[in-house]
Amino acid sequence: MRTVEWTEQNRVRMIDQRRIPWHLAHVEYDDYREVAQAITDMVVRGAPAIGVSAAYGMALAAYQSGALTVGDLLDFLNVAAVILKKARPTAVNLAWAVDHMLDVARDESLDRADDIRRALLAEAERMADADVAINKQLAAHGAELINDGDTILHHCNTGFLATVDYGTALGTIRMAYEQGKNICVLLDETRPRLQGSRLSAWECEELGIPYEIIPDTAAGYYLRRGEVNIVIFGADRVAANGDVVNKIGSYQIAVLAHENEIPVYSAFPTSTADLTMANGDIIPIEQRDLDEVRAPYGLEIVPAHFNARNPAFDVTPHRYLAGLITEQGVLRAPFTESLAVAVKAAQG
Amino acid sequence: MRTVEWTEQNRVRMIDQRRIPWHLAHVEYDDYREVAQAITDMVVRGAPAIGVSAAYGMALAAYQSGALTVGDLLDFLNVAAVILKKARPTAVNLAWAVDHMLDVARDESLDRADDIRRALLAEAERMADADVAINKQLAAHGAELINDGDTILHHCNTGFLATVDYGTALGTIRMAYEQGKNICVLLDETRPRLQGSRLSAWECEELGIPYEIIPDTAAGYYLRRGEVNIVIFGADRVAANGDVVNKIGSYQIAVLAHENEIPVYSAFPTSTADLTMANGDIIPIEQRDLDEVRAPYGLEIVPAHFNARNPAFDVTPHRYLAGLITEQGVLRAPFTESLAVAVKAAQG
Repeated sequence: MRTVEWTEQNRVRMIDQRRIPWHLAHVEYDDYREVAQAITDMVVRGAPAIGVSAAYGMALAAYQSGALTVGDLLDFLNVAAVILKKARPTAVNLAWAVDHMLDVARDESLDRADDIRRALLAEAERMADADVAINKQLAAHGAELINDGDTILHHCNTGFLATVDYGTALGTIRMAYEQGKNICVLLDETRPRLQGSRLSAWECEELGIPYEIIPDTAAGYYLRRGEVNIVIFGADRVAANGDVVNKIGSYQIAVLAHENEIPVYSAFPTSTADLTMANGDIIPIEQRDLDEVRAPYGLEIVPAHFNARNPAFDVTPHRYLAGLITEQGVLRAPFTESLAVAVKAAQG
Repeated sequence: MRTVEWTEQNRVRMIDQRRIPWHLAHVEYDDYREVAQAITDMVVRGAPAIGVSAAYGMALAAYQSGALTVGDLLDFLNVAAVILKKARPTAVNLAWAVDHMLDVARDESLDRADDIRRALLAEAERMADADVAINKQLAAHGAELINDGDTILHHCNTGFLATVDYGTALGTIRMAYEQGKNICVLLDETRPRLQGSRLSAWECEELGIPYEIIPDTAAGYYLRRGEVNIVIFGADRVAANGDVVNKIGSYQIAVLAHENEIPVYSAFPTSTADLTMANGDIIPIEQRDLDEVRAPYGLEIVPAHFNARNPAFDVTPHRYLAGLITEQGVLRAPFTESLAVAVKAAQG
């Protein structure tokens, strides 16, 4: 089962992540603008899954366009690119995937509009397959950091739902489990959208991985008590110096683990690195709808007129990180060097 | 309006805090065992409010008992004391109040059962009045730490609902506001029971204090960005060395504030200090029902069979604290000395 895929009817099909853990349901879109809205609404989320969804969105745009000429189709795709890139601001995978698809579409060897359509779909399918392969590579590297008997603290969701399949940080934990290691995962529930309790716990239930949901307020409690051996979370964008922008709450876990001398790793494909950003503090942080705080999924916590704030991501400065788990291996400080080498190697 | 009070019908009347912010409703009890259950179920919560509620519970036990002799009444009260003290394990105010009421009942100058009843009620009323007076004293000391223009980070609820009236940490913030200082409070929502969003935000709405609810995951984000000038939270029990046991999540906020060089204060009446505890790590930490994590107030986050953990308190080691705000003044390190002096002064 893939988080996002192409159907025989030339539609984009996604698991509706808003309905998990209660229902495993799919949605299908025949308009790229619906794909953009689905990314905004977090029907699909997780930097790698967003990237591939946007790539499929560009393929969908090509198929839905009635353009007969290359020029008309490229005009249509340029508009689609703008709309898809605006869906969410923080994860670099989205903008990267859309720009990459535009590059594919502009290949001058493609003489006809239908050639461009086929090329875009083939590229989206290739990116989806590559995502799964890359996740398994990085998980294999990361699993070496997990010892038999370890308890791992994890934040948000970075499992197969956050990718096309398998996962990044949770994929690393999954691989350690599949290697027969006796492990347990503490899952931060990850307010406001509760991806830890709703998505990661559901994945662990499905896979049989021992887990416990903890409130975000309890992470420090367990870190201080020495009940956690290693912290692993994902990344939505990684700066050139190794600063990690990830789901809100990651920074504080990293500081608390550092204070208690527990190693912290961020796991991500090298496509999540953005070497144009010198450090994490210049990366845009999405501010999301306040109703996610006041009434997530319709669960009314406080009246709709109560004041709230809702930043979706934070920056973990690289000094708190023991290493970066990528498909090129586990990178160590100085990250400015190791990350540049890894990105270059990945781009072949 | 008081959080807990005695009625003319010799009942204990409380605000049902589980229904705030949606309804301001009261419950009345004519059986001390209902008071104990109300404490367990967090109809009333907050260390000072729990202490006074237990004192009223002892008075209620005396009034509901049909005992005609001093000996029979004391037997009844001894049982009531055991049941009330078991209601919650962490806040020292509860056990202290119950033991204190037993001492009052055992006063040998009280010759008749009805004399004991009247003495217990008078003492509970005195404790309730004293709580309000002490809160205003500590708030006056604490308000001096808050400057015009400050943003204060606050955790859980420590307002009038956590006490008989006025509040401790939130009382300090309230007094700064009433002094005309232009301030804003960031309220951690405080999972799992959401006292920050449901109770503290409601109090700020009622009082007109500018506030914003933030997810617990965002506390570090705002501390790192330099948007917080001071952190103030309450205490459920304070050890002789100044270690503060408080609502789960306090520890991590203290570490994050310390890391970002922002001062952290705990505000509490000296009755919350327990000098028999050398440090915080030997104080018992209550583990509460897992459904508070899975389905707080009936808001179903995950299925009932999902695994979870739910520690209700944590320990903030004294080294992270800039000071302790009490009715005796703002205490500074070394707390072993300053706290002992303050407790002695309070006991007169």
